[in-house]
Amino acid sequence: MSLSILVTGGAGFVGSHTVLELLNAGHRVICVDNLCNAFGAVDAKLPESLKRVQELTGKNVTFYDVDIRDKNGLREVFKKHQIDCVAHFAALKAVGESCRIPLQYYQNNITGTSVLLEVMAESNVFKFVYSSSATVYGEPQKLPLDEKHPTGNCTNPYGKSKYFTEEILKDLCESDPRWSVISLRYFNPVGAHKSGRIGEDPNGEPNNLMPYISQVAVGRRPCLKVFGNNYDTPDGTGVRDYIHIVDLAEGHVCALDKLARGDLKGFVVYNLGTGCGYSVLDVVEAFSKASGKEVKYEIVDRRPGDVATSYADVTLAAKELGWKAKRGLKEMCEDTWNWQRLNPNGFSGAN
Amino acid sequence: MSLSILVTGGAGFVGSHTVLELLNAGHRVICVDNLCNAFGAVDAKLPESLKRVQELTGKNVTFYDVDIRDKNGLREVFKKHQIDCVAHFAALKAVGESCRIPLQYYQNNITGTSVLLEVMAESNVFKFVYSSSATVYGEPQKLPLDEKHPTGNCTNPYGKSKYFTEEILKDLCESDPRWSVISLRYFNPVGAHKSGRIGEDPNGEPNNLMPYISQVAVGRRPCLKVFGNNYDTPDGTGVRDYIHIVDLAEGHVCALDKLARGDLKGFVVYNLGTGCGYSVLDVVEAFSKASGKEVKYEIVDRRPGDVATSYADVTLAAKELGWKAKRGLKEMCEDTWNWQRLNPNGFSGAN
Repeated sequence: MSLSILVTGGAGFVGSHTVLELLNAGHRVICVDNLCNAFGAVDAKLPESLKRVQELTGKNVTFYDVDIRDKNGLREVFKKHQIDCVAHFAALKAVGESCRIPLQYYQNNITGTSVLLEVMAESNVFKFVYSSSATVYGEPQKLPLDEKHPTGNCTNPYGKSKYFTEEILKDLCESDPRWSVISLRYFNPVGAHKSGRIGEDPNGEPNNLMPYISQVAVGRRPCLKVFGNNYDTPDGTGVRDYIHIVDLAEGHVCALDKLARGDLKGFVVYNLGTGCGYSVLDVVEAFSKASGKEVKYEIVDRRPGDVATSYADVTLAAKELGWKAKRGLKEMCEDTWNWQRLNPNGFSGAN
Repeated sequence: MSLSILVTGGAGFVGSHTVLELLNAGHRVICVDNLCNAFGAVDAKLPESLKRVQELTGKNVTFYDVDIRDKNGLREVFKKHQIDCVAHFAALKAVGESCRIPLQYYQNNITGTSVLLEVMAESNVFKFVYSSSATVYGEPQKLPLDEKHPTGNCTNPYGKSKYFTEEILKDLCESDPRWSVISLRYFNPVGAHKSGRIGEDPNGEPNNLMPYISQVAVGRRPCLKVFGNNYDTPDGTGVRDYIHIVDLAEGHVCALDKLARGDLKGFVVYNLGTGCGYSVLDVVEAFSKASGKEVKYEIVDRRPGDVATSYADVTLAAKELGWKAKRGLKEMCEDTWNWQRLNPNGFSGAN
């Protein structure tokens, strides 16, 4: 079944990789993005990431430079296109920044989502895939984290905005049986498309481990900061469940297919992870091997709000979405390095 | 010290009583209200409740028919007036309705508050009193409920919108030391101004006990529904901490004075209640006595989400705000009845 899918935040890291997989699966994609974190806003006909997605797939992406808080802008898009489902990636996502400018996070992530949902309902579109995060689990009470683990107790505005939005979606589905919503709780997305043409391109100092490592390896930054080596983990550094971005994107294709088939009602949640935990030093070592570069690091203080260990129970997504991550840490590192090596300055050195 | 106070939702029950006490205390009041729940929207120069506040006080209220989600509308108000503090009452507040139309609750209560905060910051106004609720405590883990009791686990969108907004305010205060915010957690506001000129005037079937009882007593409704008599309470009906609306309004005057004095930084929370719990049947009996009317009732099923017992620990507000509720259940019932008797159809039978 070929669907028309509206992708918000389609120019971003997860968005662009998902757009690519959706196009490859034969779907039509309409993107909206305010380009606040994307390169290519200058000509604005198409951000660089989506230009490359078009090149890679040989297919067209319809793009609108629209902010999801702009109700009339969204209405225009829904008027022009018959949309089957919405995949909602548009959000601010830097934990540290969210503590400095919380209102902007709440407005982008909560108000923005709520405007989008309102316009969807007006347009009789009730199928929605939400870009959530393992951060909604707060401090793990048991591992692996399954979908029944309590949510809340998030320690920063970014995490709260994801948790609050899930609650809003749950309430919405309970209020109106026409909605079907899948919330995908991402663990730690890394890697890049095999081509090295699209990848993660954070503004400024990266918040996440893998882009930081790869910027050190490519010589853009002198040294990785490892936040604490006295956690209760095998080597003392934090353990996370890294997932290859292409696996993550495929998870979205499965979720959208499930919604389109109509065999799901109400609000449902799936973890997207591999189920394996790797420490910071594991990743550093794997990346060094994959890149042939030394990755200098220094141990610094713990970061407030970081947990020792987090990894997913992935059985539910396997059972109900028919989806499983296929790519391991080695491939995550190789593909990250390939992207970084070919694009040492991200999309801004566009070629 | 005479202050200029912006009151949002000033036409409503808590808003109008607070405006009255603020005027009596010598402050200047600027109101904004979208009149979605207020009578008097037709001529819209001034809603009926605020007309009467002017009569009762002999002072003027400046009024704007502005929705708090309307950023430009709010900006105009802040341009025209030098505001010292904001008391924020504007919100939707019916629990049952919030389950039916959750998005509207989240947009009014969360988006609305966040737009207001943004415009305040632009205008260099950083003193804020928030209209919160004991509902943020969820199911009580111990009684009385003090301000350190955990929050969250709210069972309906109304309650969640109050809880989420408190979290947003907390994050905002942590991000920027210029803010000082007092969140007042109301227990169950009832009663009316002694004059009987202003009071609670719910649209449609009342959600709360006291207005329901008084509409039965005055003959507008045949019979009170008591939701469950098998709770673990002395008479089996739910026990709540009712607080006289004039006491509540005085609590706001104290909170605004404290903010204006500048002896508070960051986010602080106070319970506003009496510390006494009364059962549904206690209130029915007290109201019958006060009104001389029989109040017919029938026992029906429990309402989902209702807790058995809730009452406040009120020591913190006494200590830090110098405020204490002075009016007991008898006066709450007498004043409610006086208002109801003089205004059997609320403000819509305006005289």
